Amino acid sequence: VRDAYTEQLDDMVALLRTMCQDVAVALEKATRALMRSDATLAQEVVDEDRSIDLKWHEAEERAFELLVLQAPIATDLRTIVSAIHTASDIERMGALTEHIAEAVLRRHPQPVLPEEVAGYFGEMGRVGVALARKAVDVIESRDAVKAAQLEADDDAMDDLHEHMSRQLMDRNWPHGVEAAVDATLLARFYERYADHAVSIARRIIYIVTGQMPGPLSV
Amino acid sequence: VRDAYTEQLDDMVALLRTMCQDVAVALEKATRALMRSDATLAQEVVDEDRSIDLKWHEAEERAFELLVLQAPIATDLRTIVSAIHTASDIERMGALTEHIAEAVLRRHPQPVLPEEVAGYFGEMGRVGVALARKAVDVIESRDAVKAAQLEADDDAMDDLHEHMSRQLMDRNWPHGVEAAVDATLLARFYERYADHAVSIARRIIYIVTGQMPGPLSV
Repeated sequence: VRDAYTEQLDDMVALLRTMCQDVAVALEKATRALMRSDATLAQEVVDEDRSIDLKWHEAEERAFELLVLQAPIATDLRTIVSAIHTASDIERMGALTEHIAEAVLRRHPQPVLPEEVAGYFGEMGRVGVALARKAVDVIESRDAVKAAQLEADDDAMDDLHEHMSRQLMDRNWPHGVEAAVDATLLARFYERYADHAVSIARRIIYIVTGQMPGPLSV
Repeated sequence: VRDAYTEQLDDMVALLRTMCQDVAVALEKATRALMRSDATLAQEVVDEDRSIDLKWHEAEERAFELLVLQAPIATDLRTIVSAIHTASDIERMGALTEHIAEAVLRRHPQPVLPEEVAGYFGEMGRVGVALARKAVDVIESRDAVKAAQLEADDDAMDDLHEHMSRQLMDRNWPHGVEAAVDATLLARFYERYADHAVSIARRIIYIVTGQMPGPLSV
């Protein structure tokens, strides 16, 4: 049987897994709302972000309790310190997703994006959701090899971002400054979301190998 | 005499103080580089960010050692967990400052910003640097009242951001899409920098009061 300590540790990891699953679903919804200018769905994303914030506090408290009660060392200590980082990363992923939904609400019933670039964002959404789902997977499996793949997967996001930027910087961009500003910020939100997913994966590598991951150059 | 443990804890806090001081200086330089299109100064900011990243790793390692060796509780444990967050916040402040410097390098010898909005960014720079300096101060003093002031000070940044956005959204914006995109991202970088300074201050409140700060709604 598992002792109380192991159980507590597993529960904390399970909570992170749920949180990460939540922000994957949230980004999928926010992207759908963005594509369809769906204010109801966007409002749902905004409302649901509160529960991610609550879970963030809970995760931090659990990490704190484990530190107080168990004085963990080695892998367990790395797991707990990483959990503190991961909970922050997921909280930011939730906040960034909320920003996407807020943009939909702000421009509704107009679409935020000109049709010409909407496709890039649909794709960024797919890549972002896939990264978050892989992060869920590695939080559970602690598979360092899979975790390392997220960094490569993130290149797809960077490529999309670059293509979109190029279109934006084209002197013949016909959609005006407001659309350009919106597209710029939205692309930044997707890109940062993906960076946080990669960050989570890097912490998994750290738990497994004991090597502190370097900062993301983003 | 201080025992080895207290000394180790104080050293970690002193390192955070230095790091925060470093990113205050970095933002001051990056803003100056932005105002004058000074590529040499901008390159200096980019180069110096490496040392902030190294210090970030060092701070994390020290926090980790303290957790392993001392099994701290109560205020000390809150200090160490907060140090982990604060070191991340400062690393992000450094990265955001680097992004500002990179924009200067990208457009050099052209200025990044049209003269019409440059003033807002000079002002955002001043507010950002002041927030970072106050964060340095509260890291050292643990003055929860002063720490609470940072949240109010951050309103100045939000106001500047809003004014700038309004000018950008003006249908008569004559500077084209590229300048609008640059201004949008730069404003976001300054705003996020300020948010991280506020985050640091909130952690100080947490250390002192034991109350976990809520997420910033940004």
